[in-house]
This record gives sequence, structure tokens and C-alpha cells, in this order.
Amino acid sequence: MATIESVDFFYLAMPQITLDVDGSQDALLVRVTSGGIEGWGECEAAPLVSIASFVCPPSHGACQPVGRAVLGAELNDVADIFAIADAVRYFSMDLLQAVHTWSGIEMALWDLLGKRQGRPVWSMLGYSQAMPKRPYASLLFREDPADTFKDASKAAAEGFTAIKFGWGVFGKGTLQKDADQLRAAREGIGAGRDLMIDAGQIWGDDVDRAVSRLSALESVRAVWLEEPFIPDAFQSWATLSSRSKSVRLAGGEAAHNAEMAINLIDYAKVGFIQIDCGRIGGLGPAKRVADHAVNHGVIYVNHTFTSFLALSASIQPYAGLKDHDICEYPGAPKELATCITNEAIKMDRDGAIHLPSGPGLGVTVNENAIKKYMVDVEITVNRRRLFPPMKKCKRSVE
Amino acid sequence: MATIESVDFFYLAMPQITLDVDGSQDALLVRVTSGGIEGWGECEAAPLVSIASFVCPPSHGACQPVGRAVLGAELNDVADIFAIADAVRYFSMDLLQAVHTWSGIEMALWDLLGKRQGRPVWSMLGYSQAMPKRPYASLLFREDPADTFKDASKAAAEGFTAIKFGWGVFGKGTLQKDADQLRAAREGIGAGRDLMIDAGQIWGDDVDRAVSRLSALESVRAVWLEEPFIPDAFQSWATLSSRSKSVRLAGGEAAHNAEMAINLIDYAKVGFIQIDCGRIGGLGPAKRVADHAVNHGVIYVNHTFTSFLALSASIQPYAGLKDHDICEYPGAPKELATCITNEAIKMDRDGAIHLPSGPGLGVTVNENAIKKYMVDVEITVNRRRLFPPMKKCKRSVE
Repeated sequence: MATIESVDFFYLAMPQITLDVDGSQDALLVRVTSGGIEGWGECEAAPLVSIASFVCPPSHGACQPVGRAVLGAELNDVADIFAIADAVRYFSMDLLQAVHTWSGIEMALWDLLGKRQGRPVWSMLGYSQAMPKRPYASLLFREDPADTFKDASKAAAEGFTAIKFGWGVFGKGTLQKDADQLRAAREGIGAGRDLMIDAGQIWGDDVDRAVSRLSALESVRAVWLEEPFIPDAFQSWATLSSRSKSVRLAGGEAAHNAEMAINLIDYAKVGFIQIDCGRIGGLGPAKRVADHAVNHGVIYVNHTFTSFLALSASIQPYAGLKDHDICEYPGAPKELATCITNEAIKMDRDGAIHLPSGPGLGVTVNENAIKKYMVDVEITVNRRRLFPPMKKCKRSVE
Repeated sequence: MATIESVDFFYLAMPQITLDVDGSQDALLVRVTSGGIEGWGECEAAPLVSIASFVCPPSHGACQPVGRAVLGAELNDVADIFAIADAVRYFSMDLLQAVHTWSGIEMALWDLLGKRQGRPVWSMLGYSQAMPKRPYASLLFREDPADTFKDASKAAAEGFTAIKFGWGVFGKGTLQKDADQLRAAREGIGAGRDLMIDAGQIWGDDVDRAVSRLSALESVRAVWLEEPFIPDAFQSWATLSSRSKSVRLAGGEAAHNAEMAINLIDYAKVGFIQIDCGRIGGLGPAKRVADHAVNHGVIYVNHTFTSFLALSASIQPYAGLKDHDICEYPGAPKELATCITNEAIKMDRDGAIHLPSGPGLGVTVNENAIKKYMVDVEITVNRRRLFPPMKKCKRSVE
């Protein structure tokens, strides 16, 4: 019989945050303790807002802070994680940010239980072994196709067997310009590697603009076209999917519950479902999506852009799926992100990565190294300090 | 040429917040000023978390605070509101709570433009007149069907032509108990009034439990069954809808963009779409949903539980739709909610309500009356106070 005794947040940030779309510039780590054991997780979410979601005053019975369902809850086995998830969903039903905060906590609960039981999380999720994954390099299209070609060649030389280009100029200009970029990317990486393209929602819900790019995408044998549209414009996605011969659609990173991702498979007709465990509510809902993907001929891919802790967590839900081998890998993260764990997950000579073999998530946090990135947050409501908490106190869940 | 000069938040709360599911216990008002004119809006959202979303440090280019896209933006006509909405969606893409904060701001922008142009908002949304709406009383099922009967009779005596029962014991016990409750509600309100039922997501995604209630719902001529399932379990919704002869499904209150609500119509097969303007991103997306509902034979209904400001805003997007006449009306709100505006929207002898005729949202905020409910919030990050802002400063949007 153990209960959740404490939940502590660590908001880390680089001294300067640039406005590049580089998610490794800050991080929100979560440490949970129960029965003398620690578990760690990471929210892929705005840190200040996520902390506020844990401590905010309740608005009513279905708009309570995330802490309500978590602190003092029983944590004996996996079923307890799902029970707490249900409680968060109910008590924080009207608090939109809640699931982003909960995602990091849920990750930490799996890590904690795994460490207590001496088992890796993928085993607790029902897999008999962790298969190697093939990381792809994630690169931005450059203004000049010649530069895109150079970046592509460089990533190929580094040993990546799959390379993704996205954002930047792509989708904004003429069809010819996009075709030139695509050809530069394909020629740069060479014939034997996988090429993926990320449109970064650039076409809103405009099917025609996306359809007009299909033949150029097909001619460079793009494996997937990621986020051509805003996530919920299902009819645009489904129409584009039906018009495409060989290029499959990829999406799902913003899904904040399992059903949203399942709907992308069932209605938007994606061929690759990309799940961020730091947003979807953690590993439990992510595994449910993986099962649905397997049953519907869709490939599961992680979405990860920060630390090796987040990377390990993001791979667990599909660790045992041999045919779902592509994986997102933070290519050039900020030093903040790489210093978080004592262990690193590095690509081997075959262009593969392997989950660490230790219990839980298989990584440990270097509390000393992260100190210099710590951000102090203080939240006071009606002269009562809500964060950091005034003292550790146990709260019981009625 | 006017720009948005300031955005101020007013967090109001009753001295004691109970854990009843009563959303009128607190409120987050927003005041926007531009060119010497004020507009007011209200977020239907956790106040502290929503304030944090406006002022938080950026995490990266697509995870910036809501203030980034709003402060200093041009506000000359309606197109500017949509442009700012697009900017919020882009710059705060990864900040989940952003849309709840933005919803109140968007409302205030319509109010402000309406006041500047001397026009009511429904006119700016394209309607030629505001039709009366028929408020329904929203009541909770009681433990004893005899009490449910009494509450139903009382609401009928008060003149309500439509009455909704929900939550409490409904759906949790035996089929017979639910049938008894439904019959008590119908007998209490009498034959000539509309009866709606709210299941409060009680069946998760379990179709069988919901289907088993259909004949009892049909026998009391329920107009709608609201939220039988969690919002994103579309296949459960669609199956239940196809199995129902006369009872239509209602849902949508949690939709946080127009596409999510449109998907509920297209895929979940709801017959009533319930939109909370304080969550979906304001009046612009709500009107888009109303247009889609009209085109697909679905009835639009507002979702509102707080002040007359929120009520006025929630009716504007379907003000001109004569056949979409049912409206949610805060039945017994806390004093906090009723004191917010100088004007009240009251039911007339025919059981109808009418939008106030003034420009904008047609109501004005009683800044004196709300003072006693004001909640002080202070947020400091690395010893820099983010809220309340240290001084008014104009920020330009690059």
C-alpha cells in the first residue's frame, strides 16, 4: 500500500529563448515520490501554465486543479495509474491545460512503478522485447534549394537512414519552388534512404493547394506528408488521403487524448500516427493508440523534441512493434535538453537506437546538471502562495 | 487606424467555492481598450491558468503567450479579429490553454468594434434581426424520483417551456431507476413542455449502456440526450445516434475550435450542437459552427452558465436563426454572476428572452459591484513580475 506523497516541478530554460520552432529550449520535469521511490516525467508543454494547472484554485467540481486527483492517491499497480487518469479527466474536465500537466506526471508514475518492480516500462505495457528504432533527422527547408541539398547530404553522411524536411519556405510559394526543394532534398539524401515531408499546417484546410503538390511528392518517393492541414479538419485530410497514390499522411502530435488520435486514423485517414507522450496524457493513452494503429494498418511514430527522458518515454508505447521502426529523434537539441539525464540514447553504426535496459524508463535525472537552468516561479493568489508550496503536506483524496 | 492598447483581466470568485458542478462560482472577465473604447468579454475557463497563458514566457516560436498576438495588433474591422485569431492559433499552437484565454478576448473585440460602430454584434455577424430565444431550466436529478417530480413541477410553474435534467443519479444505477427518474421528470413538467436529458459523459464510450436507455427516453419524448459519452468517442456517438428513433444527441460544449464542433456534426451525428463561446475561441468560430449546423439540419444551442455578459455573447452567433430557439440560461447563478452587468436578461411572460438592443454585446460591466469579488493574482518568474504587469507598455507585433 503506497500513496503519492509528492509531485515536484522543475522548470528549466535556456538563458535566451529564441522564436525558432525548437522545443528543446525549455523543459518541465516532474518528480513524483511514493513509498521512498522516485519517478521522473516530462511535460511537452508551456511550463508556467502547466504548473498553474496543478495548483490553481478550483472553479467548481469539474474544474479542479490537477493536484486534486493526484496527491495522496494510491499507487500500487498499473491499474492505479489508469484510475488516477480517469479522476484527472473528471475533476479537471473544464481545465483545458490539465492533460498537458498530467502527461508528465503519468510518465513519472510508470517510471516509479517500473523502478519499484525492477521492470522496464515496455514490459509493463505488455511487450516481450524492445525492438531497435530507426531515428530520422529532422531538418528545415532552406531558402535556397542548394542549401537544402547540402543539409540533406550532411544528414545522410551522419548515418541517418531516414530524413525529414519541413517548414521554412515549403508550401508558401509556387508549385515549382516546392518541386525544386523536394528534388534537392531527395538528391541530397540519395536513393536508399527514407524521405519525409512536414508541411507544418501551412494549407489550413485548403485541399486543392495540398493536392497540387502530390505529384511532386510522389516523384521524390516521399514516405509521408505531415500535417498538411490543421489537425481537426478531418474532411480535408480524408480527401487528400484518397487522392494520394503512394504518399501517406502523418499527424497526431497535438492529440490530447487517445480518442483524438484514433479519430485521425478512422476519419482523417492518416497512414502514420505521431504521438507525443508529453501531451496525450502519458503512456497509457499512447499505448491504446498504438494498439488501434496496429489493428488498422497504420504506423505508429513518436513525437519528441527534447530530452532522452522524453525520448525513452515516447518509444515505450510502441517499443515491441518491429514493423513500426521509424522514430523521431532530437537531432540538435540545446545543451539543456541533453544534460537532463545521466544516460544518453545514441545512434549506433546501423543508424539504430535502443531503449536503455534499466527499470522504469531506464534513465536517471542529473539533478546537479540541471540546476543552472532552473527557473524560479512564484504564484500567489489572495496573498496565499500556491507555488512553490509553503511546505510538504499530504492531502487525502476523498 | 486603431490598435489594441491594453488587455486587463478581472478574476472574480465567491468567498467559498463548493465542489458542486456550478460554473457561476467564479469568472474571468477581460477588458480590452482600443482607440479610447472598451470592450468586455468572459472566459469560461480556470482563471489563474488562463491569466498565466496570457503572460507566460515563450517556450519557442509556436508556444508563445496569448499576449504575443494580441497586444498592439490592429483593430479596425471584423477581418482584424479573424487575423488575430489566426495569429493566436499559430504563435500559441502548442499552448493548450491559449484558446480558453483567447475566447474572452475575442468576445471583447466584437463588443468593442460594435460599440465603436454603434451596431449590435449579431448584425456584424450577418443577421438582420435577433430572434427571441426560449430558455430552458437546467436541473439535477434528485436521489428520490418524488423530489425530481417536485423540482420539475416548480420549473414548469415558473414559466419555463423547456426543462433539462441531468447528472446526479442518472445512468449510474439500474435501467428501472433511470426509467423512474425520467417518468418523474416528464410527469412533473407536464405534456406540453420540452424535456431534455444530460448524461454528463457517464457511459464513457460504452454504447450498450446508452442504447439500453433509449426506449425509456423515447417513452418520455426526450428532445435530446446530452453527452452520453466522452466528447471524442465519435464511433460510440454515431452508433447510438443510428439506433435512436426520436431522441437526438446533443454535445459540443468542450469544443475548443470550430472544426471539433463540425466533426461532432459530421462524424458523431449529433442533432444539437452546444457551443460555449467562452471556450471555442469566441464568436467567430461559433458563427461558423452555426452556419454548418444550418446546412446540415442540426440545431445550434448555446452553452452558458455564468453572467449576462457571457449569455449575450453566447446567443449572438445564432441570434438570427428563428428555428434554433432553445437556449441555455443560468437558472440559479451565484450573486457574483448576476452583479457583473448593469443590465439583466430576464424571461418574459411567454417564457422567452431577448438580446439587449445596445451596441456591441448590449451590456455594460458594473466595475463597482464586482470589486468585492476580485481575486488578487501575482505571478513572478525569475524575480520578474509577469502579472499584474508592472506598467502599461505598448508592444508592437512584428
